[in-house]
Amino acid sequence: MSRFWSPFVKGLVPYVPGEQPKLDNLVKLNTNENPYGPSPKVIEAVRAQLDDSLRLYPAPNADDLKQAIADYHGVASSQVFVGNGSDEVLAHLFNGLFQHGKPVLMPDISYSFYPVYCNLYGIEARALPLDENFRIRVEDYQGENGGIIFPNPNAPTGILLPLDGIEQILKANPDSVVVVDEAYVDFGGESAIALVDSYPNLLVTQTLSKSRSLAGLRVGFAVGHADLIEGLERIKNSFNSYPLDRLAIAGAVAAFEDQAWFEKCCNAVIDSREQLSAALAERGFEVLPSAANFVLARHPERDAGELAASLRERRVIVRHFRQPRIEQHLRITVGTPQQNQALLDALDALLQG
Amino acid sequence: MSRFWSPFVKGLVPYVPGEQPKLDNLVKLNTNENPYGPSPKVIEAVRAQLDDSLRLYPAPNADDLKQAIADYHGVASSQVFVGNGSDEVLAHLFNGLFQHGKPVLMPDISYSFYPVYCNLYGIEARALPLDENFRIRVEDYQGENGGIIFPNPNAPTGILLPLDGIEQILKANPDSVVVVDEAYVDFGGESAIALVDSYPNLLVTQTLSKSRSLAGLRVGFAVGHADLIEGLERIKNSFNSYPLDRLAIAGAVAAFEDQAWFEKCCNAVIDSREQLSAALAERGFEVLPSAANFVLARHPERDAGELAASLRERRVIVRHFRQPRIEQHLRITVGTPQQNQALLDALDALLQG
Repeated sequence: MSRFWSPFVKGLVPYVPGEQPKLDNLVKLNTNENPYGPSPKVIEAVRAQLDDSLRLYPAPNADDLKQAIADYHGVASSQVFVGNGSDEVLAHLFNGLFQHGKPVLMPDISYSFYPVYCNLYGIEARALPLDENFRIRVEDYQGENGGIIFPNPNAPTGILLPLDGIEQILKANPDSVVVVDEAYVDFGGESAIALVDSYPNLLVTQTLSKSRSLAGLRVGFAVGHADLIEGLERIKNSFNSYPLDRLAIAGAVAAFEDQAWFEKCCNAVIDSREQLSAALAERGFEVLPSAANFVLARHPERDAGELAASLRERRVIVRHFRQPRIEQHLRITVGTPQQNQALLDALDALLQG
Repeated sequence: MSRFWSPFVKGLVPYVPGEQPKLDNLVKLNTNENPYGPSPKVIEAVRAQLDDSLRLYPAPNADDLKQAIADYHGVASSQVFVGNGSDEVLAHLFNGLFQHGKPVLMPDISYSFYPVYCNLYGIEARALPLDENFRIRVEDYQGENGGIIFPNPNAPTGILLPLDGIEQILKANPDSVVVVDEAYVDFGGESAIALVDSYPNLLVTQTLSKSRSLAGLRVGFAVGHADLIEGLERIKNSFNSYPLDRLAIAGAVAAFEDQAWFEKCCNAVIDSREQLSAALAERGFEVLPSAANFVLARHPERDAGELAASLRERRVIVRHFRQPRIEQHLRITVGTPQQNQALLDALDALLQG
């Protein structure tokens, strides 16, 4: 605490990201990274930028990347906004596209950064309970609000809301921006980008951190009506002219050019997820149906916090949220078959103990 | 304009960065980049990170980089904040360390992003006129204010305020955060980081974009009392957990480890600046005394806007600000001796015309 802080800083409760341990030999299933590395073409493209040109500023609007994303998703580049990870994109849209005087609607179990953004920008976060099966109740998302946001598939539940549910929410809220945060959509969902030309109030965010194996490069984006994108650009250009460095832009462009690698990695993760879910169920876990690269699971007889701690002693780290409704769950990132087996072996040892 | 924008977005007047032309064969003296590339050790360090580890998130607090900066400047790592370019650092400090209800004091001719940040965060920007020689009038920086900021050396003037002037401002404003933006200090100034242990209200920002030839990598930092840094961390962790990617962290650490390269490049730029200033003066320009990697100069008989446009036709780009008091000046980045000669040759052709 300091008398030099602007008063609101005292009230900030920052987001706490999953641990990035420095220890080697850990089976790291705690932050939903892809177990497979990025496309070799990404490495190649970044390497090609590694020269004296680093002395020069990047393209401030990352036009090449916007075009690559636009081409990939079949939209105009004026419908694409890019940022330093989807977290930065989310920060700007909370600031610029949500109405600050009204509550922003979100699920009670959801990405825990959302209420942090609300706090940063002085917005009321209104958490709407998921149903008893952890599904979004579409009918709750109505009434006066300053905006709506939810991940799809939801995190940390992994549960997908089909596009017709999203359309219901869009139609019920024609005066609010509805943000569908598709960080995990490539692992089993259908993107709402298909709807952006029909709904001027829809903004879809995605990231290269998960399905494109580039968490280390920090690239995210949003797709929506050009007017929404222009609002985001105004904020961005009042905040930081060059949020994406030259290497990140080059790597991200290349990531969209290697469709075969992308599909291979996504399919491998999806296969592993199904096997992991089944194996966990065999061991007595209740596993939510996941369309993401993680599963949320609880063991009816074992305390989740203790399980997480015991797994850590066995060098397997998963994520445990000390949060109502899911405090007895573990969120387990889908790893390689070998990593998943290491988790299962550790669990077998613990559950027999 | 969109009805979906938060109302303040309408009023934003974004910063306009210098052009990053796609054309080759331009003599690019418009955005104060270093004419020399980064240390080969930087390239090496980034290359060493170019592998499957890109699938993993970076260290959220970039601890290795904070330590490298702390070691270099002889402070504790708790006194160091890092960001995605010094622009992001500046954005967070305008938000978190300036009191929003009072005017923030800054020079009338200064980094034109400062009033943009004020606008973004709803802060009044109070511009205090430089004197007739474009020097900061230290005695003007007093009275009630929400904070003080100025570049040192100032940009786009290049003029340095000695440390005793900075101490005067610090002493006259014990209740305000005073930010010294040292983007260009390595080209001829003495850093106010020497004063941070004496003044809890002092924050010094620097960047790797200029003296360390890494504009393309987006790394900046601030040094000050640990309480000020904690305020910035709270904002950062409410905004984006990982603003620096794995490659930027690795490259930036390496940049601080090659002192010989750093000194060689800075000295070469300083030598070129002195030669360029003299050569411009020989051609009738009035050149402000610069401690930066650029010069601000005017020709008493030639319109600056026309000169800039004519230079561009000859493939030399410099920066012209359409702004009171300096609209007849050109800001010219110091290039290599060859680039500077190309500028002078073009000017000779124009001035004879």
